[in-house]
Amino acid sequence: MLGFTKRELGKSNNPSTLRRMSPRRSYDQFCSAARALDAVGDRWTLLIVRELLAGPRRYTDLHADLPGVSTDMLASRLKDMERDGLTTRRRLPPPGAVHVYELTSRGRELLPVLRALGEWGRTELGERRPTDALRAHWFALPLLRALEEAGIGTGVVEVRLEEGDFHLWLGAVEGPLYGCGPAPVEPDARLALDSVTCTAVSRGELGLVDAVRDGRVEVGGDGSAAKALRGA
Amino acid sequence: MLGFTKRELGKSNNPSTLRRMSPRRSYDQFCSAARALDAVGDRWTLLIVRELLAGPRRYTDLHADLPGVSTDMLASRLKDMERDGLTTRRRLPPPGAVHVYELTSRGRELLPVLRALGEWGRTELGERRPTDALRAHWFALPLLRALEEAGIGTGVVEVRLEEGDFHLWLGAVEGPLYGCGPAPVEPDARLALDSVTCTAVSRGELGLVDAVRDGRVEVGGDGSAAKALRGA
Repeated sequence: MLGFTKRELGKSNNPSTLRRMSPRRSYDQFCSAARALDAVGDRWTLLIVRELLAGPRRYTDLHADLPGVSTDMLASRLKDMERDGLTTRRRLPPPGAVHVYELTSRGRELLPVLRALGEWGRTELGERRPTDALRAHWFALPLLRALEEAGIGTGVVEVRLEEGDFHLWLGAVEGPLYGCGPAPVEPDARLALDSVTCTAVSRGELGLVDAVRDGRVEVGGDGSAAKALRGA
Repeated sequence: MLGFTKRELGKSNNPSTLRRMSPRRSYDQFCSAARALDAVGDRWTLLIVRELLAGPRRYTDLHADLPGVSTDMLASRLKDMERDGLTTRRRLPPPGAVHVYELTSRGRELLPVLRALGEWGRTELGERRPTDALRAHWFALPLLRALEEAGIGTGVVEVRLEEGDFHLWLGAVEGPLYGCGPAPVEPDARLALDSVTCTAVSRGELGLVDAVRDGRVEVGGDGSAAKALRGA
């Protein structure tokens, strides 16, 4: 587990755990935005929330999908987030029996913050740089928005990119908002597109309906979402 | 100017300026939320945006309303923000002739991010701690929301607290969203309340209309906003 032992992750008073948990830093300002930043303003925290919006994740999977984070930093942030009521850690029942991290309802309420950041960041996205990592599910929130703009607010949509598959739970008020890999249920629509098209849609330069009409997005499935995208 | 010279603030290539401007750190992730955090994720940046939503501010005023920030940190962040297109710096015409910092339209577009953070942070606000600083205008965004929830979406509202006065430009699509001190024009409504009431309204525990009805907010003025608050 990348130099990271179960004992260190557990609730214990041993000095190495305490060292890893940073003292909570505060702006000491009686302002609700400053208070929010006390909880989520540290580097990596909101990107960990992004990953956990995809449902419960194992430490190793989180680490793999947060390229650039050190194991110490990730462990420290997860401790802080648990202390602050944003996440919980639990052991899956057998035969899984691994520990997973998941958002509390309070943590999930950070979705509007991530969406606002993502929408502001659309014009910052630019082209992919040689140094940029990419995971297919990082397109989940932009595509969710594009689907909403196309009038599709509910249903399960599976998305296939060269970089991987993910699925979206549109209109989900609790539980995961998206997940990695194919949809675990029959999806209402299946979309196949390349990352150039996906980037243009994410940047808001290309509407999803237009992209379908231009043949840049292939739509499969018979659900209402698929029909709406094909027929609109 | 707090150990801070005009030459250091100016556009120059002298080593002390370059030392102050931190190299842009990036998550190197092709994700719009991560890109946004590349620009605004550093400590203090979003709180500087909060201050600049009140219109152009001098360095000394910014420093005074960001208790806890060091002059070096503030100068460094302002440089970064200018480099990233969030702010500009200009000299006011005589007789003012001082330098002010202001948001670009791109910087102002961060308002939804600050609002989302502030709304999430409402339940984090709690009671004022002995170590908490407070400025009256930190209640501006929560009150703006409370006024919108009371059905008041346009007009100028002046707010008087023991801690100071500020005013709100409701429905402003450009320019300042609020400002410190009394309104520079005849306001549509004047509100006087104490910080305990203002905190309850900010936390969403007390509606503004209910607070007026209970006599906890005094409403002056003859504009439609005043009438709506008194009559609702």
